[in-house]
Amino acid sequence: MSAIADQLLAAHDLPVIQLDEPLPVEDIPEAALDRNIDRMARFQAAKGKAVRPHAKTHKSPEIARRQLAAGAVGVCAAKVSEALVLVRAGIGPVLITSPVATPAKAALVAGLAAQGADVQIVVDSRLGAQVLDAAAREHGIAIDVLIDLDPLLGRTGVREPADVLALAAWLETDAAALRLVGIQHYAGQVMHVSGHAERQAKSLQCWRRAESICAALRDAGHRLDVVTGAGTGTYDIDCNVDAVTDLQVGSYVFMDQQYLDVGGRDGDVLDDFEVSLTVLTTAISQPKAGAITVDCGFKGFASESIPPTPRDLPGTRYHFFGDEHGVLTLPQGAQEPLLGQRVAFVTPHCDPTVNLYDYYWVHRDGAVHALWPVSARGCSW
Amino acid sequence: MSAIADQLLAAHDLPVIQLDEPLPVEDIPEAALDRNIDRMARFQAAKGKAVRPHAKTHKSPEIARRQLAAGAVGVCAAKVSEALVLVRAGIGPVLITSPVATPAKAALVAGLAAQGADVQIVVDSRLGAQVLDAAAREHGIAIDVLIDLDPLLGRTGVREPADVLALAAWLETDAAALRLVGIQHYAGQVMHVSGHAERQAKSLQCWRRAESICAALRDAGHRLDVVTGAGTGTYDIDCNVDAVTDLQVGSYVFMDQQYLDVGGRDGDVLDDFEVSLTVLTTAISQPKAGAITVDCGFKGFASESIPPTPRDLPGTRYHFFGDEHGVLTLPQGAQEPLLGQRVAFVTPHCDPTVNLYDYYWVHRDGAVHALWPVSARGCSW
Repeated sequence: MSAIADQLLAAHDLPVIQLDEPLPVEDIPEAALDRNIDRMARFQAAKGKAVRPHAKTHKSPEIARRQLAAGAVGVCAAKVSEALVLVRAGIGPVLITSPVATPAKAALVAGLAAQGADVQIVVDSRLGAQVLDAAAREHGIAIDVLIDLDPLLGRTGVREPADVLALAAWLETDAAALRLVGIQHYAGQVMHVSGHAERQAKSLQCWRRAESICAALRDAGHRLDVVTGAGTGTYDIDCNVDAVTDLQVGSYVFMDQQYLDVGGRDGDVLDDFEVSLTVLTTAISQPKAGAITVDCGFKGFASESIPPTPRDLPGTRYHFFGDEHGVLTLPQGAQEPLLGQRVAFVTPHCDPTVNLYDYYWVHRDGAVHALWPVSARGCSW
Repeated sequence: MSAIADQLLAAHDLPVIQLDEPLPVEDIPEAALDRNIDRMARFQAAKGKAVRPHAKTHKSPEIARRQLAAGAVGVCAAKVSEALVLVRAGIGPVLITSPVATPAKAALVAGLAAQGADVQIVVDSRLGAQVLDAAAREHGIAIDVLIDLDPLLGRTGVREPADVLALAAWLETDAAALRLVGIQHYAGQVMHVSGHAERQAKSLQCWRRAESICAALRDAGHRLDVVTGAGTGTYDIDCNVDAVTDLQVGSYVFMDQQYLDVGGRDGDVLDDFEVSLTVLTTAISQPKAGAITVDCGFKGFASESIPPTPRDLPGTRYHFFGDEHGVLTLPQGAQEPLLGQRVAFVTPHCDPTVNLYDYYWVHRDGAVHALWPVSARGCSW
């Protein structure tokens, strides 16, 4: 354990010192992580679908490597910078799931492709396609692109079917250095719909629209090798959609409270995957009876929605209390936690929580045996 | 500019490549930052008070250095890890403003003191004082401590006056390696009270209680060299409290929308300091008319309260749209931003926004001339 602490502190360029406790950091039981990866891989293989896990969840080349070893056809990166980190770590193929609209970002993508990296990217505008095409020409290479369809969500993607067809036609005729290889359709609004039946109905409705657009594209002579989308919330729904070739599942590797709160097939919780990620904090203050303060607030947990959940303290609730702290309200008669004790939390939302930390502490058989860097942390550009 | 981009990308261990645009990163006009630092220093000097800026806001040794150069008596660190980074960078004195409750953290503090660092820390429990005292004895040194008073906020600090006196007495008689040098009283609940008069009334009420506790401590023979507290929201209020020796102001270096929304002396906004920190994003998608998507969401802005504010686009509003994106709703007839254009934002809350980034881009005379690392980023333990 002290060797691990040394390694962490050395990596931070801090005085190396023995620690007898884990720091309040993200903690992964490796076996649970591997079981989640294996379970998703087997499930989709049995359905005849490929897995293209989203690395924006974990930002870790080590976890991406395990997903690829389990049969993933590639990984997704949310942004160009995330793709740079993954490619640099030897990970590929990488699909960049947000469009770019500037020559600088396009040049980074073309640069990766020119170095032989297996990189694909979505496009959703003429301008974005133009800058990519120009960058690819400059490097004398071709870039594989997918048209991003807006599932009537209004975030990214082309909304109107006629505009999708027009962009595809333009790519064919005017973008000599871009190859249209498929479409992306990620219905983010569906993932956390409560109850499996409701989620299924909404997701299939989105996919019916997407399938009709795919059919129109194929009728117009476009080849769509890849139709990618879906997430952890629809991993057992979208695999039944004929058009879908692969699923961009992300959170399943860790799970979080947001997904645990969503109804699964049994109408209760989405419990097909294990919680493999917790944040370890320490109880540092007790200003009044019935409450205790832990050393983790907005800077240690994603804070845009629900609070984190104490993993081992039934009836105890966490309340955000500023940047640095949270306060636990304890049930009547609770004896724990005591000052100085550790308190483990299920993350409220795993992706933005992971993005707050530099390392995962990895447990095997109850002991920390490795630190994995969150290599793409902060890569939001 | 490309040299700066090279430096950033090299620091990230990424392929070095020329960029013709700033990345969506935190951007500081250096002159505004220095004016804020200077303004606070002069203001408190005229009041006969010291400034002990809170480094949890900026996590930057370079900014701490400028605050000390302007006359600050030291800086604050929220956590032990933050203090380690600051001391390692040559910054001091450092006051750690959260208590510790474990031998491991106490050993880190004692280790710093044993190396000659000028470090002080708050205590708010017998247990915390015991572990600190044991660690100090082990190193054969003494540690200066301040008792943290709970301003009836219920986060950290000792709540009841009798318990404060009991802890002080115990420190005196039983903690040979700890020296009580003062008290900390930070009324976080007051900082964002709307309207200067209301904020003043609430803050002075808290301080009257704190002053009576200080008087009782002095009556009991305790020496209180330091009475520290206050924040940006009360910088021009708490300086009028006799007991106060120094102010732990933090956000004034950058300002943010939360503080801009608070009523200042003129009853309008807290406008004594300039906004010196913005986040630069890029418009990357336009799925429908009247809206445009920028490449920054929960991973790029603090998201626990209000949204960020577009700095140069009156009438345009930002809406969080997931981890990676936000959508701007444009006023009728708006011509900008166009796809590919940069959009600058005032941060919603500066501290947790800063904690998402690895570097500040520093502007001077309209051009980026330096990258400052957010060295204590992620130091939430």
